[in-house]
Amino acid sequence: MDSVKRKETNRPVVVRNPNLCEMREDILYHFNLGTETHNLPALFGDVKFVCVGGSTRRMKDFIKYVAAELDMRDPNNDYPNICAGTDRYAMYKVGPVLSVSHGIGIPSISIMLHELIKLLHHACCTNVTIIRIGTSGGIGVKPGTVVVTKQSVDGTFVPKFEQLILGQTVVRDTELDSDLAEELLRCGEELGQFDTVLGNTMCTLDFYEGRAALNVAVVRESDKQKYLTKAREAGVRNIEMESTAFAAMCKMSGLRAAVVCATLVDRLKGDQLSSSHDVLQTYQQLPQILVGYYIKKKLKALI
Amino acid sequence: MDSVKRKETNRPVVVRNPNLCEMREDILYHFNLGTETHNLPALFGDVKFVCVGGSTRRMKDFIKYVAAELDMRDPNNDYPNICAGTDRYAMYKVGPVLSVSHGIGIPSISIMLHELIKLLHHACCTNVTIIRIGTSGGIGVKPGTVVVTKQSVDGTFVPKFEQLILGQTVVRDTELDSDLAEELLRCGEELGQFDTVLGNTMCTLDFYEGRAALNVAVVRESDKQKYLTKAREAGVRNIEMESTAFAAMCKMSGLRAAVVCATLVDRLKGDQLSSSHDVLQTYQQLPQILVGYYIKKKLKALI
Repeated sequence: MDSVKRKETNRPVVVRNPNLCEMREDILYHFNLGTETHNLPALFGDVKFVCVGGSTRRMKDFIKYVAAELDMRDPNNDYPNICAGTDRYAMYKVGPVLSVSHGIGIPSISIMLHELIKLLHHACCTNVTIIRIGTSGGIGVKPGTVVVTKQSVDGTFVPKFEQLILGQTVVRDTELDSDLAEELLRCGEELGQFDTVLGNTMCTLDFYEGRAALNVAVVRESDKQKYLTKAREAGVRNIEMESTAFAAMCKMSGLRAAVVCATLVDRLKGDQLSSSHDVLQTYQQLPQILVGYYIKKKLKALI
Repeated sequence: MDSVKRKETNRPVVVRNPNLCEMREDILYHFNLGTETHNLPALFGDVKFVCVGGSTRRMKDFIKYVAAELDMRDPNNDYPNICAGTDRYAMYKVGPVLSVSHGIGIPSISIMLHELIKLLHHACCTNVTIIRIGTSGGIGVKPGTVVVTKQSVDGTFVPKFEQLILGQTVVRDTELDSDLAEELLRCGEELGQFDTVLGNTMCTLDFYEGRAALNVAVVRESDKQKYLTKAREAGVRNIEMESTAFAAMCKMSGLRAAVVCATLVDRLKGDQLSSSHDVLQTYQQLPQILVGYYIKKKLKALI
């Protein structure tokens, strides 16, 4: 146990880029932060949990929620946006928890993650766990189910992330931390407030055509059903737009990573998000409840 | 001339989706608008110019700028966000001009465009011109140059946009309106305030690795130079992250479309955005000055 703990203590955030050593200054442009203008170790050195999600508003809600859960509430209810100098991403911090928005889709999350990983690296953070909390379309699960991702797959159900570098395709694997996924699943069971399942997550490049949504895509209902049924048979339980890049990039950096998404609709039954605003709002909060519970539990175990 | 005008008067916004006819209601989820909840023709029927750009802040600045240019300034300086019910995208309107943010990257702009095109269609808009105003990295042009896109190409310098639908790759062409591009180029010359050039625009899926930026990508300087030089030889003058999807989707919908981006850096000389904040701000305003001038000129010609 002791040796495991010692090993755990030394897990850094890896940036495998020799070019970085040559640079006098590293500007994290989309955060409006930099190594020459900010003392990153002082600002971020204590970060142990990073939660990322698409919407800026939701990531602010998350930090407020976690602050309350961890008894770290600001009496003035003031959670300033650390990236206020830009409107590309928003970032909030309470104690060891960082909450960052990433916008929609792989290109948007990949910019944010490149800069976040370098930020954690420059800040000399260790043993960081990173969890994407989001919303998704479900496949054969009832709306309001929370899916913890077992494997993140592309639109052909393969666990890979393809990227063009210097005009050449580079393929990266999308393995997530299976222990972390199991822990999160157990947290869902302990909470007992909503259904939590482990399943594969399909990551698409488009919300409508990539998912064969009839309200945009010119596809037949029967072809859509065939495609989604094949996805279900491949273990896919939900569809979103960031998980393959998230998994690949976190793995390369040595971050323990998980994806936790609420499903807003069962795509086998329909395409439009026609539940009431209040119901959708409630669904959106489920991943933050689960992850808030997990973080609280982990921090308690450290005391 | 008369027959041209008559033809022009009848150019609708096309949505080629038979599934739409079957739907009682079309919910434009990421705008928080819908056909049952909003009178789209009353709200948007007069729109003739749509400008889209990544940042919400910049698109609000743009509507203020255009309002001043067109003498349509609100005395209370109040330009409410039409999509205030969501933080995914922001939308502003002044007279016939609509300004919409699209976030970063193809997935993000494609969601916005799917909903925008349906919005314009439901609102029965005709003769709409749409222009993306953005920022970009230049190749062999000095920072602060405005590039009007001739052809939008992918990371292998081919003018195509690939998309996965039902697990199959669909390839779409990325042709923009060449007359509109020429008109915009002439506007730049008439203004004479900054360099405006016509050139190809390379659209990548990632800001760092897709562009071989040494501050993230593990590539050698010499390989980067080789790649960017090849791009320059293929007519590429700037790199951004949305134009192929934008061009393909606008073409399918019968929208006259153009892309106008300022360059913030010459990528042949460096990767980091190290110009001062004020200088970058000035560069970012150039596309809005050019497009504001164009819109004013077109509206004057109609009187």
